[in-house]
Amino acid sequence: MDIEFIPGGVTAAQGFTASGVHCGIRKNRSKLDLALILADRNCSAAATLTTNKVKAAPIWLTIEHLKNGQARGIIANSGNANACAPGGMEAAKKTVATVAAETGLSPEDFIVNSTGVIGQPLPVDAITTAIPDLVKSLSPDGNTAADAIMTTDTFPKKAAVRFTLGGKTVTLGGIAKGSGMIHPNMATMFAFITTDCAIDSALLQAALSASVNRTYNCISVDGDTSTNDMTAILASGAAENPMITEKNADFDIFVKALNAVNLKLAKDIARDGEGATKLITCNVMGASSYNNAITLAKSVISSSLVKAAMFGADANWGREMCAMGYSGAEFDPSNVDIAFSSLAGQIPVCQHSKGLPFDEDLAKEILNQKEVVIQITLYEGDYKATAYGCDLTYDYVKINGDYRT
Amino acid sequence: MDIEFIPGGVTAAQGFTASGVHCGIRKNRSKLDLALILADRNCSAAATLTTNKVKAAPIWLTIEHLKNGQARGIIANSGNANACAPGGMEAAKKTVATVAAETGLSPEDFIVNSTGVIGQPLPVDAITTAIPDLVKSLSPDGNTAADAIMTTDTFPKKAAVRFTLGGKTVTLGGIAKGSGMIHPNMATMFAFITTDCAIDSALLQAALSASVNRTYNCISVDGDTSTNDMTAILASGAAENPMITEKNADFDIFVKALNAVNLKLAKDIARDGEGATKLITCNVMGASSYNNAITLAKSVISSSLVKAAMFGADANWGREMCAMGYSGAEFDPSNVDIAFSSLAGQIPVCQHSKGLPFDEDLAKEILNQKEVVIQITLYEGDYKATAYGCDLTYDYVKINGDYRT
Repeated sequence: MDIEFIPGGVTAAQGFTASGVHCGIRKNRSKLDLALILADRNCSAAATLTTNKVKAAPIWLTIEHLKNGQARGIIANSGNANACAPGGMEAAKKTVATVAAETGLSPEDFIVNSTGVIGQPLPVDAITTAIPDLVKSLSPDGNTAADAIMTTDTFPKKAAVRFTLGGKTVTLGGIAKGSGMIHPNMATMFAFITTDCAIDSALLQAALSASVNRTYNCISVDGDTSTNDMTAILASGAAENPMITEKNADFDIFVKALNAVNLKLAKDIARDGEGATKLITCNVMGASSYNNAITLAKSVISSSLVKAAMFGADANWGREMCAMGYSGAEFDPSNVDIAFSSLAGQIPVCQHSKGLPFDEDLAKEILNQKEVVIQITLYEGDYKATAYGCDLTYDYVKINGDYRT
Repeated sequence: MDIEFIPGGVTAAQGFTASGVHCGIRKNRSKLDLALILADRNCSAAATLTTNKVKAAPIWLTIEHLKNGQARGIIANSGNANACAPGGMEAAKKTVATVAAETGLSPEDFIVNSTGVIGQPLPVDAITTAIPDLVKSLSPDGNTAADAIMTTDTFPKKAAVRFTLGGKTVTLGGIAKGSGMIHPNMATMFAFITTDCAIDSALLQAALSASVNRTYNCISVDGDTSTNDMTAILASGAAENPMITEKNADFDIFVKALNAVNLKLAKDIARDGEGATKLITCNVMGASSYNNAITLAKSVISSSLVKAAMFGADANWGREMCAMGYSGAEFDPSNVDIAFSSLAGQIPVCQHSKGLPFDEDLAKEILNQKEVVIQITLYEGDYKATAYGCDLTYDYVKINGDYRT
């Protein structure tokens, strides 16, 4: 069974269209700020939502709308999070009511979300005024939707794959946004996935939850978890594969395809963390359990001190040891190997928890690449895990020191 | 009962001397890097040590030496943490053996610690060579010891108080270092406290643990917890107050005095966080329990997004809401008030979890002060808590991007 990456994103699967317009929430008129994704038929739908106790109004509304496991579309704006804002629920309801009327569907058919500043009223009239144009702009080109959900992202994120189930070609693709407030267990990140796979909503939710845990929940930008995080998926069934209603071989293939797309989007989110200059991958091998391995890897890529050292290309591996030590994971602190690698080569810096002499110039060259791997080897078992993050830079501070202006 | 702040630090209590010299671990010859604190008699001793699973060699040795609850002195170096370093335990043992021989005491009489880079062998010969001079330099002026434990600290931290127990004047004072890797539940921070109070070691440990929990464990600089954290206290009994052997009224006074010194030192550590330009205080009031209040306050002052906004004097209070929401504390997210205050005034920005209109210029002026208070009010009970931190700045990234050079 092959899973093949193909061009495209949220409209790669048959029967999906998308659009993005500038409705006026963002001051810059060239910045799109309202996105719509629509299926040509009713879809199985699932989502994973922020674990933050402070949830934005559209999150609550989406929870209501997904109770039946069905949806047709996703509408989302950037520039304003509609969280802790007066009239937030009314604004979210007005948004979905307007897009439902314009498309001849029901408000409950829509997933809705917002991203941006917290605490300011959502300019909902700008949204409703733009919705007719948004619906007219729907097309099989999903690029404008990917642009419209961006906040401080520096590039749009999209991915799509094709695979075969029961002799039928199935396509799955998506778009994402990230950048700040990204942390294991979701963050201000959206990932909107569509597929023409036939799968019932309970299995779709199971697949999504499992996949999110191994992809988006393994990245960290700054340790903050937002009020608006959402991964949502629509599955239309247009591919006419045998409907997946149990955890069979087809389900496993579907999960692999979903993981491939989600991992690509997750890594792009980490790579494009606010102010980031490089993607940091931490591999932990030889752990006594997956939980210990992923806890260690996440702790390392979340450490401000590790992240700042990576920015400076400083092979200060004591910071990795330190971050492992306070992670809460079980491991033998006296038997840890650490090496750094990248396209420029690899260099072991610590063996059995003791420093090795190493070539500082080579270490600097290795850490100066755009993708750096921190390889941590334990001697306790066969479990491994990988987490993704980015460096901590002057620009992170600059971007977040005055985000609102 | 009055607790009065007096000048001085770790030698304010009678019978304590201290010294600091340059032994050569630090390249800069004007930077002192080896400190000694010595009592004129045997002391009750207690310590709280890092919870990091990766503990430096001197931490393990100190645990051994404190098993009898007694000590006479503290020796500590900066510039090298003696953690994950080949020969670390031997180096720590050689350090205490040398200072014991030079003072005519036993190695077990000494608490020992190190702070600085992890993973490089401690240059122990430099230390042992300097110890005779270190011992000769002991004096009632504790300033050189405060200087010698500094790493990236920009000013030495010291505090002392005087109070009365059973008609006797008791003095308690200390020195501390902090700066990076500072987080609730200890950090690369030292606090060395001395007192002439008569108190047995079990009660001393109880007092210290309680006090650390309400002071050093309520500060955060960057969320990293180091391999070498230590708060240690020596109590000589020279004040001849009635020996404290139970949790009586005298014990309560002693804890208050200890809290006063520790809180002053903790706030100075937060204020002097690496690259920090301001002290951030987060008060949470009206919580349903102390644990909920302190969890919320710590989460707010630990958030990179809050810290960056404070650096930029940006009244982006949604970040406080967000940090509260992912803290894990129990509270009603729909009923939170937030206000900012400083010497420049105060401004409410959020009431019952909804944004208030406010004067952006005044908010900027308030947040541009050197000490800023984030006031969070809940409506759930009478519990309150305070946590201390600092802003996240370009200089934090710069300092930690190339710490080793």
